[in-house]
Amino acid sequence: MSESMASPSRRREATRQKLLDAAAQVFAEVGLDAASVEEVCERAGFTRGAFYSNFESKDELFLELAGRVSLSRVEAVRARVRALEQDGALNGGETKALQVIQQVLDTTASDRLSVLLMSEIRINALRNPGLAAASLAQEDELLVSVTQIVDDISRASTLVCVLPAADVARVMLTTWESASVRAVMAGLNHTQMREFVSAELAIVAQLVIRPPQS
Amino acid sequence: MSESMASPSRRREATRQKLLDAAAQVFAEVGLDAASVEEVCERAGFTRGAFYSNFESKDELFLELAGRVSLSRVEAVRARVRALEQDGALNGGETKALQVIQQVLDTTASDRLSVLLMSEIRINALRNPGLAAASLAQEDELLVSVTQIVDDISRASTLVCVLPAADVARVMLTTWESASVRAVMAGLNHTQMREFVSAELAIVAQLVIRPPQS
Repeated sequence: MSESMASPSRRREATRQKLLDAAAQVFAEVGLDAASVEEVCERAGFTRGAFYSNFESKDELFLELAGRVSLSRVEAVRARVRALEQDGALNGGETKALQVIQQVLDTTASDRLSVLLMSEIRINALRNPGLAAASLAQEDELLVSVTQIVDDISRASTLVCVLPAADVARVMLTTWESASVRAVMAGLNHTQMREFVSAELAIVAQLVIRPPQS
Repeated sequence: MSESMASPSRRREATRQKLLDAAAQVFAEVGLDAASVEEVCERAGFTRGAFYSNFESKDELFLELAGRVSLSRVEAVRARVRALEQDGALNGGETKALQVIQQVLDTTASDRLSVLLMSEIRINALRNPGLAAASLAQEDELLVSVTQIVDDISRASTLVCVLPAADVARVMLTTWESASVRAVMAGLNHTQMREFVSAELAIVAQLVIRPPQS
């Protein structure tokens, strides 16, 4: 179906999505404060009129964008878990289990733009209680999904979690985020970044998930 | 010695420090982009002339501030380690060792303003390769200091580190930073924040430092 044939609500959603995608790039590159509505419109190929018929303000767009970024991370992790369950991949040995966690975390954004956008959301959430509450709630959702994976793995394998699954998930997520930030600061390319983040995650994984007590 | 009696270089340094302190507040509150030189001057009680005779630009001041923030964290940790060594506190039991790490990390900034400033430095370092290199170097210095504490503790006690000391230090620092950010987002007050960060550190500490193999 071509865009001109689409229903008004679908066309409207397509316009919103294009504005959000363009804004994600601009916010990541220059930050929320320095980003102008004009620059977002130019990048998306729309007029200011199109912008303001979709969003009341730059801040409103940023709030929606922050929500979508977190939601898409949660959805990517959940989809990955479902796929792994269907493959029976959760039912493997020790090495495989670590690979599974790795694969699941790899589905969450790990490119430069995403790390910048996450950090931009973080600094703004620290200054804005409404955005902070939304960010914490979405982080909790992500935590629940990763906790479920950890639970599934420890049930399906002979591995022993040395902490409650939620703590294991938290430690893995924290490590993933911190390593991603350091990788971007160090100017690593995408391949190097994945390798670096994987190595950091492996260090922590061996701490929290162990072969059965010998 | 009153300020008017101070040497020109000392007066100059006092002015720089006041401008840096004021800028730290303004950058933390509104961010580097939204902060104006005027606002920094007003907060510090100086004219724009005083600002520009000390710093070429807002960005130059920010770079110096970022350096001082990291340096002061490193120095606080080092001073704390020296004090603990003199007290013989590193030579305690398991519980005490965890308290020591806790105390050392507590000396690094854990108030709302510091967390905001660290996050502001992080987002700007992600966008500025020069600042990124400086940030990573300073983070490495901090890591070396905390690694030294971990080494000292494991030498002086019966505790066993399950990872190389540098990895233990990294995991503790990452946990400390992540928990501090979540505490500020959740709007915790200073006391609640310390309790929350301590609890999160304790979870990870029990992972990386263990009583001798039974």
